[in-house]
Amino acid sequence: MADKTLGILGGLGPLATVYFMDIIVKMTDVKKDQDHISMIVLNHPSIPDRTEFILDNTKPNPLPVMIADAKKLQAAGADYVVMPCNTAHFFYEQIQKNIEIPMLNIIEETVKYSIEKIKRKSEKCKNNDGIKLGILATKGTISSGAYGNMCRKYGIDCAVPSVSDEESLMNIIYNQVKAGAKVDIDEFLRIIAHMRADGCDALILGCTELSIINRDYDLHRDYIIDSLEVLAKRSITLCGKKIKENL
Amino acid sequence: MADKTLGILGGLGPLATVYFMDIIVKMTDVKKDQDHISMIVLNHPSIPDRTEFILDNTKPNPLPVMIADAKKLQAAGADYVVMPCNTAHFFYEQIQKNIEIPMLNIIEETVKYSIEKIKRKSEKCKNNDGIKLGILATKGTISSGAYGNMCRKYGIDCAVPSVSDEESLMNIIYNQVKAGAKVDIDEFLRIIAHMRADGCDALILGCTELSIINRDYDLHRDYIIDSLEVLAKRSITLCGKKIKENL
Repeated sequence: MADKTLGILGGLGPLATVYFMDIIVKMTDVKKDQDHISMIVLNHPSIPDRTEFILDNTKPNPLPVMIADAKKLQAAGADYVVMPCNTAHFFYEQIQKNIEIPMLNIIEETVKYSIEKIKRKSEKCKNNDGIKLGILATKGTISSGAYGNMCRKYGIDCAVPSVSDEESLMNIIYNQVKAGAKVDIDEFLRIIAHMRADGCDALILGCTELSIINRDYDLHRDYIIDSLEVLAKRSITLCGKKIKENL
Repeated sequence: MADKTLGILGGLGPLATVYFMDIIVKMTDVKKDQDHISMIVLNHPSIPDRTEFILDNTKPNPLPVMIADAKKLQAAGADYVVMPCNTAHFFYEQIQKNIEIPMLNIIEETVKYSIEKIKRKSEKCKNNDGIKLGILATKGTISSGAYGNMCRKYGIDCAVPSVSDEESLMNIIYNQVKAGAKVDIDEFLRIIAHMRADGCDALILGCTELSIINRDYDLHRDYIIDSLEVLAKRSITLCGKKIKENL
């Protein structure tokens, strides 16, 4: 298979975009520079906030900029588009229908990956029956139903944080990670424990800022599934490169 | 001043490109995503090796791809081009004359920054007299005379590693950092000590792979000047944003 170029619609936010590129580079099995995948990246942080618009559509609409950026990536020679931001997938279909190259869907890839992983370790779930995924994400992602609808499509249950945990999670995402401030890790672990007590088989870090916390505090556990890592792995293989072993 | 878009001619190598973006994001003084600078990045690792061509011009020439990429950045809306790779600056003038937007020169910016820094801490160097910079870089950068010529332009002396240290440095850059292998940090520190004993006022990490070592082993000392950090700071202010205090 000829090598492909990955188009990254980034800047949503910038830290997550850089981290996404970083894990792609680190997860790719290489001996020299030339073995890495080729990327075109638009890191466009001035795009209006996605959650704000999803929760209140009188706010500035980020969609026109996102469509323009996706077209720019296509024009510059990208073979695939990825968006390292779960919340922005609210706009997935509207972006995809405006470009001719395929766009990977982080939410669908993550749900599929989670189901495979849970099935590998448990005998009970022959037909996805009884699988329950916990979704840790922004209010925008949760209220858009993106993960809920995808779980339904694959015949599994999903759970979201309580209203007060959701507020606390938004505070962690916006006022701590996005602002470059210190993360209240104990509070984040408390929210995780809450979701596990609710019977979730696995918890999805369905927000790239939570992937940053995963990096900084190494939350890698068998039951934690990092959507950004799933998207990175899928991008590497799609672009014709190999993922390092033991990842 | 209106905010500007930074075009990054990257992939030379990919790790350094990602790290360059990372330090820009981390060094920018922000409260929210929208305060970050906008970037367009071509991370094009299949570009032929720069040092190989500089040392033997029968090898594949990376220049045509670099010019094409610089034009792509311009077409996509970049206001400035930067190349987070010292060795590739061998081609700086040929790239600059093929585009209309300005291209920052990492070598010139680093030499200017070094002189300012040395003058701030020492009274002896009123007219740059007696300033001596040590250059740690690839064989391609050293033999192209890029730093040597720039130091001459500013009236200062420069020193390069001995032939055997140069071999050892190439091994660290190519077979350790670029290959994702463990770095022999003791050997790198020995080379640094050698250069200091040679009377250098400051040592320039004039290769982005050495900046990666600086990140991983925190070599930040008063006499170490990291060319990638200098380029990042300059990029942030050029694009109309503020550098975080205490950096």
